[in-house]
Amino acid sequence: MTVRVCVVDTTFARVDMGGLAVRELQRLIPGVRVFRRTVPGLKDVPVEVLRMVEEYGCDAGLALGWVGGSPVDKYTYLVYSMALQLVQLEKRIHVVDVTVHEDEAAGEEELYRVAVDRVRKHVYNLYLLLMRPGELVRMAGTGRRQGGPDVGPLRRP
Amino acid sequence: MTVRVCVVDTTFARVDMGGLAVRELQRLIPGVRVFRRTVPGLKDVPVEVLRMVEEYGCDAGLALGWVGGSPVDKYTYLVYSMALQLVQLEKRIHVVDVTVHEDEAAGEEELYRVAVDRVRKHVYNLYLLLMRPGELVRMAGTGRRQGGPDVGPLRRP
Amino acid sequence: MTVRVCVVDTTFARVDMGGLAVRELQRLIPGVRVFRRTVPGLKDVPVEVLRMVEEYGCDAGLALGWVGGSPVDKYTYLVYSMALQLVQLEKRIHVVDVTVHEDEAAGEEELYRVAVDRVRKHVYNLYLLLMRPGELVRMAGTGRRQGGPDVGPLRRP
Amino acid sequence: MTVRVCVVDTTFARVDMGGLAVRELQRLIPGVRVFRRTVPGLKDVPVEVLRMVEEYGCDAGLALGWVGGSPVDKYTYLVYSMALQLVQLEKRIHVVDVTVHEDEAAGEEELYRVAVDRVRKHVYNLYLLLMRPGELVRMAGTGRRQGGPDVGPLRRP
Amino acid sequence: MTVRVCVVDTTFARVDMGGLAVRELQRLIPGVRVFRRTVPGLKDVPVEVLRMVEEYGCDAGLALGWVGGSPVDKYTYLVYSMALQLVQLEKRIHVVDVTVHEDEAAGEEELYRVAVDRVRKHVYNLYLLLMRPGELVRMAGTGRRQGGPDVGPLRRP
Repeated sequence: MTVRVCVVDTTFARVDMGGLAVRELQRLIPGVRVFRRTVPGLKDVPVEVLRMVEEYGCDAGLALGWVGGSPVDKYTYLVYSMALQLVQLEKRIHVVDVTVHEDEAAGEEELYRVAVDRVRKHVYNLYLLLMRPGELVRMAGTGRRQGGPDVGPLRRP
Repeated sequence: MTVRVCVVDTTFARVDMGGLAVRELQRLIPGVRVFRRTVPGLKDVPVEVLRMVEEYGCDAGLALGWVGGSPVDKYTYLVYSMALQLVQLEKRIHVVDVTVHEDEAAGEEELYRVAVDRVRKHVYNLYLLLMRPGELVRMAGTGRRQGGPDVGPLRRP
Repeated sequence: MTVRVCVVDTTFARVDMGGLAVRELQRLIPGVRVFRRTVPGLKDVPVEVLRMVEEYGCDAGLALGWVGGSPVDKYTYLVYSMALQLVQLEKRIHVVDVTVHEDEAAGEEELYRVAVDRVRKHVYNLYLLLMRPGELVRMAGTGRRQGGPDVGPLRRP
Repeated sequence: MTVRVCVVDTTFARVDMGGLAVRELQRLIPGVRVFRRTVPGLKDVPVEVLRMVEEYGCDAGLALGWVGGSPVDKYTYLVYSMALQLVQLEKRIHVVDVTVHEDEAAGEEELYRVAVDRVRKHVYNLYLLLMRPGELVRMAGTGRRQGGPDVGPLRRP
Repeated sequence: MTVRVCVVDTTFARVDMGGLAVRELQRLIPGVRVFRRTVPGLKDVPVEVLRMVEEYGCDAGLALGWVGGSPVDKYTYLVYSMALQLVQLEKRIHVVDVTVHEDEAAGEEELYRVAVDRVRKHVYNLYLLLMRPGELVRMAGTGRRQGGPDVGPLRRP
């Protein structure tokens, strides 16, 4: 059966996260049907995901947010992220919540790399959730990170 | 079919955000039907939006909030913004959440300009969401900002 | 038709906010039916409002809270205020959320005046919401404040 | 008719808050039926209250929490307290939310006294809510405190 | 009747919390049926728990989260933890919420020990909730801690 995934990103973001995600999804899941929309900002994402899930019968979603650096922006992140939980709980599907925070990198080059790495790895995570859940169990507790290198498991003392 | 939009602003605000939004909506969407209400403050907005959406069968809403500068005001913003998410998720429509924060500008003149710019651009965003969603996809990741100049996309390193 | 309003205040408050609100409501809306209850503290208010709205078929409510000055008290305010949003969204009615914060005034005399001014003005706001919504639209963006003097609209630069 | 109350406390607490609450309830409400459970920590309380309310048809509940002193503990308090609001709003009953914060007293003796005083007074509050709501109205705005002495009403300036 | 428990942990964690939890559950509850899944991170846990509870008819769940040390990570914890409350309240079952915070230990060895101790003790707590609730009442107010030594009850002054 064809896997159906919706992707929602923003015009607020400074990297075309949605375009990258669509390409990665198509590379990883041959035959996947991807439905993509772009909304202005973070707070417009959850309802767009919900609408697309219902309109296209998606099996999962990808929410791609870009968060400013001020304290108010962090509250907005909190609201956005909680609303995405509500969408997931109502529809009983995974909506992988990918956010890049403008203040998490030292400069613009690093921020670009963080964004690209995080999108790629989260798309791969979504692929595992949908197609190979057993593989995730084998990776439990191994310190995977998105946006930078994995930190690995703690050694047993 | 006629587009129906509700607009809710506050008497707490220091700029007539609702009046400006109504004019911009009518300029951008000929034949739009706009339903406007004003409430005292931020916390009165979400239920008013919900009531209007149900009373007039709106396709989308515009919530125009003005937030004070104290930490308690920021909690109030959080509550208001979360409640607007609930309205959107219940009704499956976009309610663009526009807020001006009293402490985000250096002086009153700048604050005025921030408010006007933000309302105008968010009304345009709502127009795109309703009428030209494909245009938003073309703008994905281009660093659009409301309240000040766009910052543009990050260069690929 | 008779307007029905419920009023809930607390024994934690240091001013009889509920008594004042009842008198102001009766002065502003002749023939109003007011249903009043007092609960111990902030977190007991939302469910009491919900119970009264359902028991007496209220058209609106007034929640009168008194908030301590510690960070934990502010979290409690957040929880209380979010729960009041849920009540409003479920019942589709306005419940004007009036809070006095113990740390917002320099001394006890000023705090008393803040509380009285805020209750009076919010009761007037509720009156406008119920009886004269068009008047609120005329007041949009005029910088109204409750608890102190209005700050007025920003001048157009 | 017999009043039915559920009491939920934790093994995380350092005072047997539940035992004290049960004794106080039985002293204040002759013939009361009290249903008591203990759970490990704060986040286990709300669902336990909900289960007991439904299993035993309780008229009200008492949630007895003990909160650590770190910032993360305060977030946990926020989550716990919001979930208790949801329980109250769903069941339309009061669940008095009693919390002791490990960092609110100077030493262990004082913390013990805070806990005991707060439980006693909140049980009394629950008794008033259930049996003598009119008495609470007479106490409106009188500055009652739980965990320490009342502060009294503000004087009219 | 066979007890059914679901366990969800993450690849973000640096200790195989899920594997440990499964072994402990099987040791404590002979004949228990454990259903285990691993997801990428904290925000993927709640919907996975909900899906497993419904798919396998679980009597309880164990959510095993690993939280980073930045302020944004703490907001993510808040969102995750609130969503787990919603799952519990919807399904009327306990989902014990176990989190390890990367910044709560002095070094990696200590963090490993905190994680192992916390998982073990919370699995034991879940066992008590399911099989021996009366035992928990006997432990009320005794200052139990997970992740480190118990602190014990306060002495009566």
